[in-house]
Amino acid sequence: MEYSYEYFMKEALKEAKYALEKNEVPIGAVVVCNNKIIGKGYNQVELLNDVTAHAEMIALTSAANYLGSKYLIDCTLYVTLEPCSMCASALGWSQIPQIVYGTSDPKKGYTFISERLVHPKCQIVKGILEAECSELLKQFFKKLRD
Amino acid sequence: MEYSYEYFMKEALKEAKYALEKNEVPIGAVVVCNNKIIGKGYNQVELLNDVTAHAEMIALTSAANYLGSKYLIDCTLYVTLEPCSMCASALGWSQIPQIVYGTSDPKKGYTFISERLVHPKCQIVKGILEAECSELLKQFFKKLRD
Repeated sequence: MEYSYEYFMKEALKEAKYALEKNEVPIGAVVVCNNKIIGKGYNQVELLNDVTAHAEMIALTSAANYLGSKYLIDCTLYVTLEPCSMCASALGWSQIPQIVYGTSDPKKGYTFISERLVHPKCQIVKGILEAECSELLKQFFKKLRD
Repeated sequence: MEYSYEYFMKEALKEAKYALEKNEVPIGAVVVCNNKIIGKGYNQVELLNDVTAHAEMIALTSAANYLGSKYLIDCTLYVTLEPCSMCASALGWSQIPQIVYGTSDPKKGYTFISERLVHPKCQIVKGILEAECSELLKQFFKKLRD
């Protein structure tokens, strides 16, 4: 088994597809530590009636529970869509050293507010499986309009 | 009973004092709708090992549960310390129309990143019971250093 950005982004895409099945905006995330997934999440804003129930928030809380530590040292978060300001700030608080995302979000992505929202030492990798991540969102919004 | 900014900030201060008793950074919040408190929270980051467990996040999730709606229309959030970027963004997602805070946070307050983090129509009131809110935090950090 070869681990790669694409390998783990596919896992985040699986999470996004669970969201799609439940008529949630299809966004998924996983937290990886030493090539092991230690937290997962998909967007559950509608199901939980909770604006904070973004994929990243659920994945990071679940990873922190797994580690028994609020800091996600040596972890990477993979998420299908660029994090919003809330999630970027939460990831900043967690001191996670790497964030990998699929497609950009020109409406709500944190980079359109401030790149300072994430931790200054956090490495950002973007554009991994961008087409697949983006296509899932397009399908969802097209279905909403039809 | 006269309701005022000060009245509800005192309630947020009560929450902050619960945090202090549990050796958490003393920050408290309440969500008010038609002069009724429908959500409360105090900082529980250490207790829950969860960087997202800020007073505002707990209070807003609790208020949304109470209302059965993810949008906090006609509500006001009172919090003893200026919200951080994560909480300001979460409050933005909730579309809450008013935020009242006690003391500013020059290190982590959202206004030092971008005032665009809250909803554009959200009214901000600051400096309510500022001395009490600030004193509680000073006590806590002094005790930590001693």
